[in-house]
Amino acid sequence: MIVVAVSGESKSGKTTLIEELIRELSSRGLKVLAVKHGRDFEFDKKGKDSWRMWNAGADTAMLSDGFTTIMLREELSLEELGRISKADVVIAEGFKRANIRKIVVKGKENLKVSGEVIAVLKSEDVLSGNFDVRLLADLIVERKE
Amino acid sequence: MIVVAVSGESKSGKTTLIEELIRELSSRGLKVLAVKHGRDFEFDKKGKDSWRMWNAGADTAMLSDGFTTIMLREELSLEELGRISKADVVIAEGFKRANIRKIVVKGKENLKVSGEVIAVLKSEDVLSGNFDVRLLADLIVERKE
Repeated sequence: MIVVAVSGESKSGKTTLIEELIRELSSRGLKVLAVKHGRDFEFDKKGKDSWRMWNAGADTAMLSDGFTTIMLREELSLEELGRISKADVVIAEGFKRANIRKIVVKGKENLKVSGEVIAVLKSEDVLSGNFDVRLLADLIVERKE
Repeated sequence: MIVVAVSGESKSGKTTLIEELIRELSSRGLKVLAVKHGRDFEFDKKGKDSWRMWNAGADTAMLSDGFTTIMLREELSLEELGRISKADVVIAEGFKRANIRKIVVKGKENLKVSGEVIAVLKSEDVLSGNFDVRLLADLIVERKE
């Protein structure tokens, strides 16, 4: 399993880059899991059944037409998440302090990251679509961690 | 791991019963996973980062302050879900055709279910709170499948 992070300051284009990487890697037959840190997200709507179960104190899962949503009361590691998804490639957004390979999207600030930096892109280039997603995908898959 | 389903027609009180079972089993120190079939649920809001990643074709996970949400492009089994949640008890809502133990909430229709029926409650009793949740919890935990 390959694990890589796309790190950069807010609004630098990380998600835009990740979307393109997902499409490129998927087109190569690789299963991709994207992971991000988030806040204030809602699991289903207030008052709905799954919300009620979650609020009664249970971990909660919902199955629907070929999809599964699971909500857990713990933070899983990238490796655990990758195993659950049976992913070939895990792309994490952010995670700048994690000791994993990084693609850095460089904005105005200097970003300190841990782990090996395999590519650095300018934010303005990412946001204008001026980057070679195939080359980046090659860099990601050429070596497993 | 114990797996049990609460089956019954729509609006019979299944979720009300499951909420009480979750509270009772959790108060006994058991970790509970609730599972339901659903439709039309949304993973995060349209346009948000995780939505964009999901729509680009990746399985998607979100980590936030001690919680994890995972969305997968396959339907996992109750056993797989239970393992991911590290649950002691998996309570499934519906699943009347699955060959697992059942608590049946009986409304107006005759419900055909597979698996061993360990309790039958009247819908009107469940909806009015007229049931012994401790006894039901005892029936659930007295035997592992």
